[in-house]
Amino acid sequence: MYSFKNDYAEGAHPRILQALIESNLVQEDGYGGDYFTQKAISLIKDKMENPDVDIHLLSGGTQTNLTAISAFLRPHEAVIASNTGHISTHETGAIEATGHKVISVETIDGKLNPAHIRKVLDSHTDEHMVKPKLVYISNSTEIGSIYKKSELTDLKDFCVEHNLLLYMDGARLGSALCSDDNDLKLSDIPTLVDAFYIGGTKNGALIGEALVISRRSLKEDFRFHLKQKGALLAKGRLLGIQFYELFRDDLYMELAQHSNDMAAILRDGCIATDFSFLTHSPSNQIFPILPDFLIAELQKNYSFLIWERIDPSHSAIRLVTSWATKEEEVRAFVEALQSIGKIKHS
Amino acid sequence: MYSFKNDYAEGAHPRILQALIESNLVQEDGYGGDYFTQKAISLIKDKMENPDVDIHLLSGGTQTNLTAISAFLRPHEAVIASNTGHISTHETGAIEATGHKVISVETIDGKLNPAHIRKVLDSHTDEHMVKPKLVYISNSTEIGSIYKKSELTDLKDFCVEHNLLLYMDGARLGSALCSDDNDLKLSDIPTLVDAFYIGGTKNGALIGEALVISRRSLKEDFRFHLKQKGALLAKGRLLGIQFYELFRDDLYMELAQHSNDMAAILRDGCIATDFSFLTHSPSNQIFPILPDFLIAELQKNYSFLIWERIDPSHSAIRLVTSWATKEEEVRAFVEALQSIGKIKHS
Amino acid sequence: MYSFKNDYAEGAHPRILQALIESNLVQEDGYGGDYFTQKAISLIKDKMENPDVDIHLLSGGTQTNLTAISAFLRPHEAVIASNTGHISTHETGAIEATGHKVISVETIDGKLNPAHIRKVLDSHTDEHMVKPKLVYISNSTEIGSIYKKSELTDLKDFCVEHNLLLYMDGARLGSALCSDDNDLKLSDIPTLVDAFYIGGTKNGALIGEALVISRRSLKEDFRFHLKQKGALLAKGRLLGIQFYELFRDDLYMELAQHSNDMAAILRDGCIATDFSFLTHSPSNQIFPILPDFLIAELQKNYSFLIWERIDPSHSAIRLVTSWATKEEEVRAFVEALQSIGKIKHS
Amino acid sequence: MYSFKNDYAEGAHPRILQALIESNLVQEDGYGGDYFTQKAISLIKDKMENPDVDIHLLSGGTQTNLTAISAFLRPHEAVIASNTGHISTHETGAIEATGHKVISVETIDGKLNPAHIRKVLDSHTDEHMVKPKLVYISNSTEIGSIYKKSELTDLKDFCVEHNLLLYMDGARLGSALCSDDNDLKLSDIPTLVDAFYIGGTKNGALIGEALVISRRSLKEDFRFHLKQKGALLAKGRLLGIQFYELFRDDLYMELAQHSNDMAAILRDGCIATDFSFLTHSPSNQIFPILPDFLIAELQKNYSFLIWERIDPSHSAIRLVTSWATKEEEVRAFVEALQSIGKIKHS
Repeated sequence: MYSFKNDYAEGAHPRILQALIESNLVQEDGYGGDYFTQKAISLIKDKMENPDVDIHLLSGGTQTNLTAISAFLRPHEAVIASNTGHISTHETGAIEATGHKVISVETIDGKLNPAHIRKVLDSHTDEHMVKPKLVYISNSTEIGSIYKKSELTDLKDFCVEHNLLLYMDGARLGSALCSDDNDLKLSDIPTLVDAFYIGGTKNGALIGEALVISRRSLKEDFRFHLKQKGALLAKGRLLGIQFYELFRDDLYMELAQHSNDMAAILRDGCIATDFSFLTHSPSNQIFPILPDFLIAELQKNYSFLIWERIDPSHSAIRLVTSWATKEEEVRAFVEALQSIGKIKHS
Repeated sequence: MYSFKNDYAEGAHPRILQALIESNLVQEDGYGGDYFTQKAISLIKDKMENPDVDIHLLSGGTQTNLTAISAFLRPHEAVIASNTGHISTHETGAIEATGHKVISVETIDGKLNPAHIRKVLDSHTDEHMVKPKLVYISNSTEIGSIYKKSELTDLKDFCVEHNLLLYMDGARLGSALCSDDNDLKLSDIPTLVDAFYIGGTKNGALIGEALVISRRSLKEDFRFHLKQKGALLAKGRLLGIQFYELFRDDLYMELAQHSNDMAAILRDGCIATDFSFLTHSPSNQIFPILPDFLIAELQKNYSFLIWERIDPSHSAIRLVTSWATKEEEVRAFVEALQSIGKIKHS
Repeated sequence: MYSFKNDYAEGAHPRILQALIESNLVQEDGYGGDYFTQKAISLIKDKMENPDVDIHLLSGGTQTNLTAISAFLRPHEAVIASNTGHISTHETGAIEATGHKVISVETIDGKLNPAHIRKVLDSHTDEHMVKPKLVYISNSTEIGSIYKKSELTDLKDFCVEHNLLLYMDGARLGSALCSDDNDLKLSDIPTLVDAFYIGGTKNGALIGEALVISRRSLKEDFRFHLKQKGALLAKGRLLGIQFYELFRDDLYMELAQHSNDMAAILRDGCIATDFSFLTHSPSNQIFPILPDFLIAELQKNYSFLIWERIDPSHSAIRLVTSWATKEEEVRAFVEALQSIGKIKHS
Repeated sequence: MYSFKNDYAEGAHPRILQALIESNLVQEDGYGGDYFTQKAISLIKDKMENPDVDIHLLSGGTQTNLTAISAFLRPHEAVIASNTGHISTHETGAIEATGHKVISVETIDGKLNPAHIRKVLDSHTDEHMVKPKLVYISNSTEIGSIYKKSELTDLKDFCVEHNLLLYMDGARLGSALCSDDNDLKLSDIPTLVDAFYIGGTKNGALIGEALVISRRSLKEDFRFHLKQKGALLAKGRLLGIQFYELFRDDLYMELAQHSNDMAAILRDGCIATDFSFLTHSPSNQIFPILPDFLIAELQKNYSFLIWERIDPSHSAIRLVTSWATKEEEVRAFVEALQSIGKIKHS
């Protein structure tokens, strides 16, 4: 049984484990004051060609989202997010638990655009309603789509004009930036959003997300929020060492590229067998629509999520690849798909 | 420069890193559904001879405290803690950030007893005041003292009588249980407190605390709270593998014993040089009172915290040992202490 | 300029002011311990033929909703409400500010039914999502519709079956119970919902809502929540005297009946002029759809809300009546509507 | 039985009830948009000779404190208050329920000075602790003492220097300003503190506190916070009319003066009988230390709080006067005190 269920089924890239071993007995300061964390932050700033951002390393995505968003907002301010956004449905009300409403907006492809936001602003007109203040987007989105530079620029301009904050959940930012469709550079992002995070957990690390804060007014006292929300690890070195390893050369991007390459093989395999997709997803998650009998056959050897029923005899499934996905398994899956799918498709 | 500043200066015990490497490419379910987490939980239950408790693995102490306490209390209920308690001062108001007052009680030795609690209950008499509901204790305490079985039993009886919850912060539980003064067994603890955690971060793990919930009414839906507070790691295996390794034999206790042994050498060295202590601390933290000139000399080669000024020429310092503390460094420190201390002491 | 904007444009029914004057210099205990509050509570219990409920008097609707709902829920539990529900949009995120997500459900007529709730339950399946726990309904709803006894019974049965709490916002409960369509008695309500409030502010009082808690498990310690949320008035007598006056005879229902009667005249006037309505609203709020030129004419002498654009030349407006609405003003409005409306309508 | 238990035992000053009656059927906008609220705000600004402050009318003290303080602070910021401060113990953790720690400081006389605050700042040094940000004082304090202008100026200077906010709870501000010891003018206060409230509930109103915000940065969006916390009354006119009546001439100060005059008679009566006091309280609350037998005798005809046991045969009691306290009752109390007290005192 091989799993395409998610991109966190394996441990860490071996170089990361090796780095943990090599540094293991060096005594370091706690709480992110260690050499590795400082060095990792410096490397990421270099990669972004941006010395002015603040960077903090946290353990996971939900933790990063709730710590950042609650630190950035005043009590009456709310978040605008796509209905597919991770904070909208899959974080157990983590944002609301810090006191803030998440205004959920129906989207087709998981992406927000200025028209979506304008509609929210138009319907929030006075103090009887929350004040929409922060726009939450994910790149890649939870359904695999990515933002083009022009789209992100439009969002940014709209946010500037309306005094909104723009925040990007980058749990799968690596995959987005390595997508064939992508025209964003890592260095563009801090100039286009007020804060975002570079996801480590889903791209080769054991745990870890690097939160980047580019807007000056959001930087102050951020470490207090980290500590208050339980996000300041005593052995911050664990995060530092991993991001150091991911960013001391191009490992972070290489891992994402591998992940996308594996997804591309799956995607091409589906196309070649004339299957369609729920959504255009040029990243490491794809959502082919398959006949139920084929799904049942594939489930004998592969695990994956059944995403959504499409019609009485077809469902969309979700296939996710990662840095650790093995090419031979991907090719075997495609072969199975094609051999079973083609025969019975006809 | 050798550090006695804390018990989280190094990485993890080598066996833990080895276990991470060996399991690295096995595909596992996320969010604690992996084999290792389930196995670790089973092992800890076995060690406690208690199949009925619920166990959850979290990343750090503040996270564990805030997730558990906020899950256990209704909005008007408050926590009683020693003024030295970690949640009282060193968690950036993490408990208050979840809505609950921490009623701080002055203690001599960091330990709460029924008389302390009774005084709080006597002064909280109606709905104009919070309702004290949960008693927070640490074992060992933040100043190195430990609870005897009789003391914990007294607390438990008092809490039962007054319908209070008893919660133990076990960030350094290993050291407490291995103390020469200790008469508690791990298996006693779930029978004496409603919930507690077994600290991993400060006893050989990279990160990780095992929260044990013994009171039935506190168990329900706890995973929702984990997720909401950002404590549910996608790669929960990271926690599972570590606790599996710590508890598949006696490693957890052996590491704590080493830590205590190293502290004992330091303690004996101070006693032999006729230095006194701020407090009786039979665990891995000691607080000798030293002349300032000696402190200044020691600081040339060792790092440690200056805890509190005692008089114009003396201060208490804090020395902390861990599983990783090297005996030769400890002996060298004692030698330095004695050679400098004795000469100038006379 | 006469206002049909809302049902809180005037002060209190004169009998209430008279009662305030007569009792003014009697010394009373604070915080609801006064004679009048106790007597009012007793009277309301009598009207409901239900000695077992707990009743608390609060100042306003948002305060009542947020105090009750936050007291009733654990941190991970969420509220299900219609998208038109007051807490969904018009309370500035008051519920979220206490930590709970409001799951908003699109409804046609402002009313929830079991099918709505089932859909929410079906999509909230594990700990990555909030746990839907409390169903919030309003009677009458924010768009004037009311619940029939059978509908409320269906909801109650569904909630019991699925271990959900059912809470009714009764800001306009008087108007609902006096509606021609109504078949609920006040005494039915505590047997059908777990908690609800009887609105005073919009039915003759200066301020005041009577929260009724019928489910035993929700009663404990409620006064702590009142105090914590700033809802326990020092001069609780102000609330007590008002509800005493409203419930010592049939004044509460008489005021609601007057309000509905005035709305009926407006409704009939619209029907007679062949105008249709946005929604069926057999209570004190009606939503006729009028041509824009007529709205503009009416606005010269009357104030009311323009609720929603219907087509390029028509909008729905909201007309609200109250205990204080004068029949001659209502008749004058209808006359204006008919004389202008009929002429240009043809 | 006559009550000296508190200053909220009666209703409102008759002029206020009269004003409610006269305005009762005038239709007004809701939520503070009414004529009276706007006029009251304007009058208070005139009295303070300060057109630049923002003023909001709320229902009660706890509501005002929690709404203001939670609006002013970021999540990691804390309040410094005297241990006798109302928010420290008698508001059921209302501030903590909004997420903020209250750092309680032991004081002798209920008043904070710069030395108290400096000590708190000195012990809160990094992100592992909350960040002290707002200094909460009461004038008069909960034990009857008042701030001199020089004391308040010292506090203000210290707060400015350390970037702290200074907030004054003015539940009994009238009594403080009418005290014989007072040298503050109402117009001084907005120049010395960042925000404060003028208490109405305890000085002639049914309910109502006027929150004055003088610091510009605290003003923005405040009405959102009012609504979110349930503090925006639909019939805001109820608050407006009362403050209009209290401030359209000198009624507010006259009522406070009467209250103080009555307390002075009680105070002089105690002094004349050679009783001492728990604390110097030159306002409308006094705390004489009486022999227990005398207390028992007085309790037959008077109700008051027994504040604190002083020795085996004496206790301090609290006597509170108000705008409604009758001089003949006060004189009768003094007579009883003296006749019983003198006889048995000898």
